[in-house]
Amino acid sequence: MQGPERMSDNIAEFDAIVKDTAVGYLGITTPDGYPRVVPVNFVAVGQTIYFHGATSGEKYEAFAARQKVTLCVAIPYSPIPSYWRTKDYACPANQFYKSVLIRGTGRLADTPEEKAAGLQALIEKHQPEGGYVEIKADLPLYKKPIDQVAVYRIDPVKVDVRVSFGAKYPPEVRRELIRRLEERQGPMDRATAEEIRKTLNE
Amino acid sequence: MQGPERMSDNIAEFDAIVKDTAVGYLGITTPDGYPRVVPVNFVAVGQTIYFHGATSGEKYEAFAARQKVTLCVAIPYSPIPSYWRTKDYACPANQFYKSVLIRGTGRLADTPEEKAAGLQALIEKHQPEGGYVEIKADLPLYKKPIDQVAVYRIDPVKVDVRVSFGAKYPPEVRRELIRRLEERQGPMDRATAEEIRKTLNE
Repeated sequence: MQGPERMSDNIAEFDAIVKDTAVGYLGITTPDGYPRVVPVNFVAVGQTIYFHGATSGEKYEAFAARQKVTLCVAIPYSPIPSYWRTKDYACPANQFYKSVLIRGTGRLADTPEEKAAGLQALIEKHQPEGGYVEIKADLPLYKKPIDQVAVYRIDPVKVDVRVSFGAKYPPEVRRELIRRLEERQGPMDRATAEEIRKTLNE
Repeated sequence: MQGPERMSDNIAEFDAIVKDTAVGYLGITTPDGYPRVVPVNFVAVGQTIYFHGATSGEKYEAFAARQKVTLCVAIPYSPIPSYWRTKDYACPANQFYKSVLIRGTGRLADTPEEKAAGLQALIEKHQPEGGYVEIKADLPLYKKPIDQVAVYRIDPVKVDVRVSFGAKYPPEVRRELIRRLEERQGPMDRATAEEIRKTLNE
């Protein structure tokens, strides 16, 4: 992956990236000074992030201390082999992507009502077909699990959206990539061709 | 995602996770104290990590300063809906996974020979079908790109491998999950059923 051609705070793009992606990568700082990265099933409510976890451990301590934390959510698009662009030179090999980086303050939801709301938002995203009783703080069914789980929240301070689809390549190179992607028909190739087409404004 | 049932320094499991995964999530610490997470196309040579990038910016400065850095590589397996386990309670919803976290020291490859070796390892992983001239420091074709790119290296200090496939669930629950996964046939369902089966030792 190379640097992005475009960064934005485009809300529609942010929403599309976070809604379509089940796993985000949380950054916390450990007591011994490592920027630890942890995969989490998250949900974005606006640009506030929720996920759930244990009531102890490094992640819990980081959020209890209201650390600076981040969440990265990326969608890898098609890999582009070097030989689509040059005969012998390996350097043009690349992978297109969209990504979001949220920098914010870690918090723990501290009332049963806020925990229930965070958990409900999570299950609505990850199990959209339903099949459960809505999570509410005043239901006896949920009293014990709400007490026993931690609901983590990231209050956003700065949000970056990055997209990389060859916008700096000459138009004829981009048209050739679209042709190759439509011919190859790999898993993300149609979506990638569509994104490259947008950079051409044709 | 819930906590792992098992952590190990199993080399075979580490190798399988990093070889099958194109994108890893790098953790660096920014000048303003955020644990920033960046998606990168990486390669592991043994447990030493290489990727490439620009010769300036936050990532470059972090590696030039030999910061403590991390790389997380995760494979999300099947999501498990709550209603496979209970009728109304949302809590059993879960997603199985394997992941690796490498904590180490960031370094910049400082000779053309080491840069060439890192870049060659990268292209062999990401373009296994070939279609380029092997990257060597003494080839005129590659002199300028090798000069202009930074090759980043993580020297590992500690490596954790985590796997989560319901090993703490009663055997009859795990057998039921295998049955459901084989019936559903989603993208990762067969692989997930296989991993759950391993936890049963049957």
